[in-house]
Amino acid sequence: MKIVGLGPGNEALITPEASNALSEATDVVGYVPYVERVAPRPGLTRHGSDNREEIRRAEQALEMAAAGRRVAVVSSGDPGVFAMGAAVFEALEAGEPAWRALDIQVLPGVSAMLAASARLGAPLGHDFCCINLSDNLKPWALIEKRLRLAAEADFAMAFYNPRSRSRPEGFARALDVLREACGLDRPIMFARAVSTPEERLRVVTLGEATPEMADMRTLVMVGSSLTRRIPAGREGSEWVYTPRSVLSSEVDR
Amino acid sequence: MKIVGLGPGNEALITPEASNALSEATDVVGYVPYVERVAPRPGLTRHGSDNREEIRRAEQALEMAAAGRRVAVVSSGDPGVFAMGAAVFEALEAGEPAWRALDIQVLPGVSAMLAASARLGAPLGHDFCCINLSDNLKPWALIEKRLRLAAEADFAMAFYNPRSRSRPEGFARALDVLREACGLDRPIMFARAVSTPEERLRVVTLGEATPEMADMRTLVMVGSSLTRRIPAGREGSEWVYTPRSVLSSEVDR
Repeated sequence: MKIVGLGPGNEALITPEASNALSEATDVVGYVPYVERVAPRPGLTRHGSDNREEIRRAEQALEMAAAGRRVAVVSSGDPGVFAMGAAVFEALEAGEPAWRALDIQVLPGVSAMLAASARLGAPLGHDFCCINLSDNLKPWALIEKRLRLAAEADFAMAFYNPRSRSRPEGFARALDVLREACGLDRPIMFARAVSTPEERLRVVTLGEATPEMADMRTLVMVGSSLTRRIPAGREGSEWVYTPRSVLSSEVDR
Repeated sequence: MKIVGLGPGNEALITPEASNALSEATDVVGYVPYVERVAPRPGLTRHGSDNREEIRRAEQALEMAAAGRRVAVVSSGDPGVFAMGAAVFEALEAGEPAWRALDIQVLPGVSAMLAASARLGAPLGHDFCCINLSDNLKPWALIEKRLRLAAEADFAMAFYNPRSRSRPEGFARALDVLREACGLDRPIMFARAVSTPEERLRVVTLGEATPEMADMRTLVMVGSSLTRRIPAGREGSEWVYTPRSVLSSEVDR
């Protein structure tokens, strides 16, 4: 069984390793819009399922692999970053002992975080953290604690799942915590549907940011205290980058 | 000018976008071993330079691009993660005003962190941070502060540049801080030269870890308090993953 990262959306960002795995699969398993990124062909069955069904989906994939099918479990971006990788290993640990004998490979992909960072410059060019802002699977108090500690550590930050339809208030609270911890002038970046025709990039300050700037297809990044905004070639556009160096005099400033 | 991520080492992990950029370049610029990953061909000049010359190398690339060359600046992994991305934007900000008009594109790649994570399972399957352990460009006190805060936030952690020849003692100190903050039983992973013929993977506890387990080609990861080790198919091998869920009862335990 292969757990395959499809990259952020553009075909040119799918690794040859992942493309080969998809071309050899008999069954592709995943969230509906990701399964639909794999073109139909004779001999391939596509099993699309709903967003919140990760564990059931992982079990289905393991069952089919145990029955001798060549299964590709697909995730957008990289399968190890808030995607199907962890779900498959959770199902493996809790499931049939025979599943442990399966040949499982995880094929990495370009994550949304790295693709968004590339389009904006190099905002994650120094130490950073990556936090899933959805409180479906963890208490809000933990998210808030991590945001405060990440700000204290002066990490650049990348946020997945900033804003769900069912819990729109979470991201507004996250912005309040960040404004308090990082100040109003800190750059915040909204990168929606990166590398697709619907791509939209926006750089503002925390003081200017509003919850509506993000939806569930948006990767949000916040700079460290050293992150810089510089004008780019095109009129009105800019680059954002975090320098590689921190001087002693800049610590605890 | 293109700033290109070559992925962790295996050809099958280079994106088609990156391959296309390399095939169209007139000049490839980078650290010697990365430049050598681009095959020589007529019409291509390869400019390899030493490890510590990032800014001079970035200036050289910008100068050539301004002179009309099709320049590819290459990094291993992803150019935005402790690589040439930030260096080019630092040089751009400090350099010739004319350079701002250049068409610059950053082409993301599969980072060493994502490739190592994939080989081991999904150790970064929940919130995580990524820290450069080299104190060439920042004070050791900041590294130690970030390690302590990352442990308090209960992030999984990925470390680049754990151990340099010139400063071997730094990683021993990092292990001491991590043992104190995370306990002796926490899993630590050493992933050397992932996806290449020299790949070596090792999973131990912080209590068992020694500084010699890492060199400059090793990506080190430490689990969160919830990270699990489970037996894999092959005798003696195992998977490491961090579950997607955190129950309220597990916070502050």
